[in-house]
Amino acid sequence: MAKLTYQQLDRCSAFAKLREMPAVQVCNELDPDRIARYELPAGGGLTFNYAARPVNERIIEGLNQLCAEQELREQFQALHEGAVMNVGEQRMVLHHLVRGRLGSDVFVNGRSQRDFYVEQQERAAVFAHGVRAGSIKGSTGKQFQTVVQIGIGGSDLGPRALYLALKRYCEAHAPSELDEEADSPSPSSSSRSPDPTLEARFISNVDPDDAAAVLAGLDPERTLFILVSKSGTTQETLTNEHLAIDWMKRNGPRSIRPRKHMVCVTAEGSPLAASDEYLDAFFIDDYIGGRYSGTSAVGGALLSLAFGPEAFSQVLEGAHEADKAATAPFAENAAMIDAAIGVYERNVLGYPSTAVLPYSQALERFPAHLQQLDMESNGKRVDREGTPVRYPTGPLVFGEPGTNGQHSFYQLLHQGTDIVPLQFIGFRRNQSSLDIEVQGSTSREKLNANLAAQVVAFAAGKADDDANKHFPGNRPGSLIYGEELNPRSLGALLAHFENKVMFQGFLWNINSFDQEGVQLGKVLTKQLLGGGERSALLAAYADILGV
Amino acid sequence: MAKLTYQQLDRCSAFAKLREMPAVQVCNELDPDRIARYELPAGGGLTFNYAARPVNERIIEGLNQLCAEQELREQFQALHEGAVMNVGEQRMVLHHLVRGRLGSDVFVNGRSQRDFYVEQQERAAVFAHGVRAGSIKGSTGKQFQTVVQIGIGGSDLGPRALYLALKRYCEAHAPSELDEEADSPSPSSSSRSPDPTLEARFISNVDPDDAAAVLAGLDPERTLFILVSKSGTTQETLTNEHLAIDWMKRNGPRSIRPRKHMVCVTAEGSPLAASDEYLDAFFIDDYIGGRYSGTSAVGGALLSLAFGPEAFSQVLEGAHEADKAATAPFAENAAMIDAAIGVYERNVLGYPSTAVLPYSQALERFPAHLQQLDMESNGKRVDREGTPVRYPTGPLVFGEPGTNGQHSFYQLLHQGTDIVPLQFIGFRRNQSSLDIEVQGSTSREKLNANLAAQVVAFAAGKADDDANKHFPGNRPGSLIYGEELNPRSLGALLAHFENKVMFQGFLWNINSFDQEGVQLGKVLTKQLLGGGERSALLAAYADILGV
Repeated sequence: MAKLTYQQLDRCSAFAKLREMPAVQVCNELDPDRIARYELPAGGGLTFNYAARPVNERIIEGLNQLCAEQELREQFQALHEGAVMNVGEQRMVLHHLVRGRLGSDVFVNGRSQRDFYVEQQERAAVFAHGVRAGSIKGSTGKQFQTVVQIGIGGSDLGPRALYLALKRYCEAHAPSELDEEADSPSPSSSSRSPDPTLEARFISNVDPDDAAAVLAGLDPERTLFILVSKSGTTQETLTNEHLAIDWMKRNGPRSIRPRKHMVCVTAEGSPLAASDEYLDAFFIDDYIGGRYSGTSAVGGALLSLAFGPEAFSQVLEGAHEADKAATAPFAENAAMIDAAIGVYERNVLGYPSTAVLPYSQALERFPAHLQQLDMESNGKRVDREGTPVRYPTGPLVFGEPGTNGQHSFYQLLHQGTDIVPLQFIGFRRNQSSLDIEVQGSTSREKLNANLAAQVVAFAAGKADDDANKHFPGNRPGSLIYGEELNPRSLGALLAHFENKVMFQGFLWNINSFDQEGVQLGKVLTKQLLGGGERSALLAAYADILGV
Repeated sequence: MAKLTYQQLDRCSAFAKLREMPAVQVCNELDPDRIARYELPAGGGLTFNYAARPVNERIIEGLNQLCAEQELREQFQALHEGAVMNVGEQRMVLHHLVRGRLGSDVFVNGRSQRDFYVEQQERAAVFAHGVRAGSIKGSTGKQFQTVVQIGIGGSDLGPRALYLALKRYCEAHAPSELDEEADSPSPSSSSRSPDPTLEARFISNVDPDDAAAVLAGLDPERTLFILVSKSGTTQETLTNEHLAIDWMKRNGPRSIRPRKHMVCVTAEGSPLAASDEYLDAFFIDDYIGGRYSGTSAVGGALLSLAFGPEAFSQVLEGAHEADKAATAPFAENAAMIDAAIGVYERNVLGYPSTAVLPYSQALERFPAHLQQLDMESNGKRVDREGTPVRYPTGPLVFGEPGTNGQHSFYQLLHQGTDIVPLQFIGFRRNQSSLDIEVQGSTSREKLNANLAAQVVAFAAGKADDDANKHFPGNRPGSLIYGEELNPRSLGALLAHFENKVMFQGFLWNINSFDQEGVQLGKVLTKQLLGGGERSALLAAYADILGV
């Protein structure tokens, strides 16, 4: 493979040209023809529509040239073929490989990485089948009813967002193999009918009130914990492991053996992996970053247990479809166009933030996951060689589901003094069968009518002589939509954003795969807790807070 | 009262002077003496510390003059004495009156507004006592176990944030009157010990998958709904009322009378109030805006039912303490100083966003409430007379609890290219009794050590020859802290931010109490659902989304 160039964004001639081009007023450009033309498949049955983004053919061609100049396709190819793209930590970046091979396989010390990831998936699948069928039980012989994932950051936000996104769908659409399991005798005393899903909960915060709330009402004998920490040293996760063990001892029978209610997801060489006290362990490695680990065993163990391995396989399939779509030439590459327009909005138009607005309550925590994915990946001030950049990089990302957000922060989005580019997500069908027609339309129709209305309202605005009722419009928005939110489309949605963030990192020439910014806080916390010398500033704040 | 001036921010001579003053580098200013001096009581046992904000004595004095020039104390006095401060809608702004009298009472058509609000609180208290004691039952004679609030925006975010904030506390600290109730015989078949709290859930989104998930597993005969809509016409809430009725009919016995499982919180003249089919109704009025209604019956009915009226009274007490603190002269007024520094950060330093970072898992949805409170109040581009402003107004607000955020978006906050001012919140004690010492410190100590470490890390930074490990520092942060998060301190915390947002609106000379920006979307949605003519743009997006 040819050597890649790697240069800062403002060295690109295409970037200079883009800055010279007149900006587009979305409100003047948007028409039905453009809505039909400005869209592309994004994998997993999803379509990416960018008709309401502030671009035209000329700007798009400029972005095409920019992506060529920054060698985005070549960088992505290098990445999935095992180049050390995480230069700061000198690591490969292999999260695409957990969901299928894009090119050739990658080998480490003679071992196929693809085989390693598949092996972990298969081991987690066998384990999940055993737990779900009742052949793997708690230490006092009772079937597991609840899975509690203990993890933080990437070990929490992605898995949690995915779990919530699929809970209703998997309850309503049990695949045939899950149906069989649901017929197996259940020792549960619950009066509810057998449920093909296992309830999942999450403990993340080191605040002990988090664990207290999550554990309240659970039966220790029927609870399975998944400890997720790649390093096996994460303060929050190890502390919460002890809390959970203590809780089991105090609330379970004397015979309970707490670590036999725990499986680990960790690196092979970690302290957690070294212990044989746990019920089982599934492995990840240094080539899967936390915020990119939703499709690895970090998300896989939980989703396989909660919904069955079949559902998790479909997530991987959808993600792989989106990955394949991201290898296409610019003109057919939804993730690359999405990324390039985002950089245009950030670095040419100067918009400092972007909102994620899923019109699906099941995606209630998906914006929180994207917030980590994007801000931790691209919130960087130096390029991949460590030289400070002279331009803004990753934007602030936030969001809540629609229609809820409409009754909250949309006021500022419509009529505030700053423009915030919007990323809408929608589906034609809902997940549950619950719906009702009120005043001539169903809830689903109301939801999507609101979504269509908002995209148009933001882009087109509305003139009014009363300045307080005037909508300036020209607020850009894209729309990713699909038939329904199911495991496959969810996997594609996740991977689309992962790939978009990766492409933006390539455009900015930053390393999207390390996170040195989290270190200083850890060091200072250790100083405080270690009992040694503490700086006067630390001591003053610690005193205030009773530490 | 003397006539107030009302002028745009950039007309103030103090503002011009502030723009001339050299900016402060927090990293150079912060020392233990300053940490001790730059703090003020904020009511409810809370303390507001602004030592790590980018100000010095000179800038503070400039802000004092600015607040005097914009007549903040006089405007607040006018507001709580019944001036029409919501000029767009020609309404008074009386949310302070629901929690106690700051000055004289306000009368409407001869009726004391204070008496009206107290009457509604007392009626809700009597009702809550009845439900909790079992004297008010469901239509089939069974005691209520779960309360489901159906509301959106201000009828959801505030009440939900408050409920989650107090759930653990009220479970662990039942007041004596609640203890008595807990001893009363419970017809519940649950094997758990009698619980002085009633479980609450929330339905907000028009997406029917929201209601499906919330209602799953509930017993219609034991479920009480609170319908909250001031106008009685909110699309989402009325639709979800029908979904809930349908669900009760399909899952309950034939004899169930669904509307006898429902109480309304609404304006006296609304369509909801006109019906006598409901179990009961509690009233609000046009002088309490949705996002300011957490301490009115909108939050009060739910909190009184869930935790007992006594706990809600303490929330009101704490809020009233913060309100009183907000009437003080500038130098002793935490909310006013917080507001003024925020405007300085926004309009002099040019920071477009701010993060809310509570180090308390119980405050997990408090940032989402503040997001509405702030962005819907101050996301305005015209002044109170309707003239466009020439300066930025309300910032973008987002946040998640610490330590979770540390493993998510803090990377960008520490090392991104933009500076984001930070609003930390912390408490010396936790709410539950669950805690454990691991490696020499408890979880609570770890939590607060992390908080202290982050405030210092953001402000002071850390030099490093490796630019990728360099922390520029100078990231401003304030800290609001208290002994514990309980009903009183929570009420004060809520009111502190309400008053801060109000003062910022006064400084920008905007109307923080209307929300015309939500109207256009509603109009276009109606066009789509009404079956009449739809614009070509609307039709194109509606077609994509299957509407």
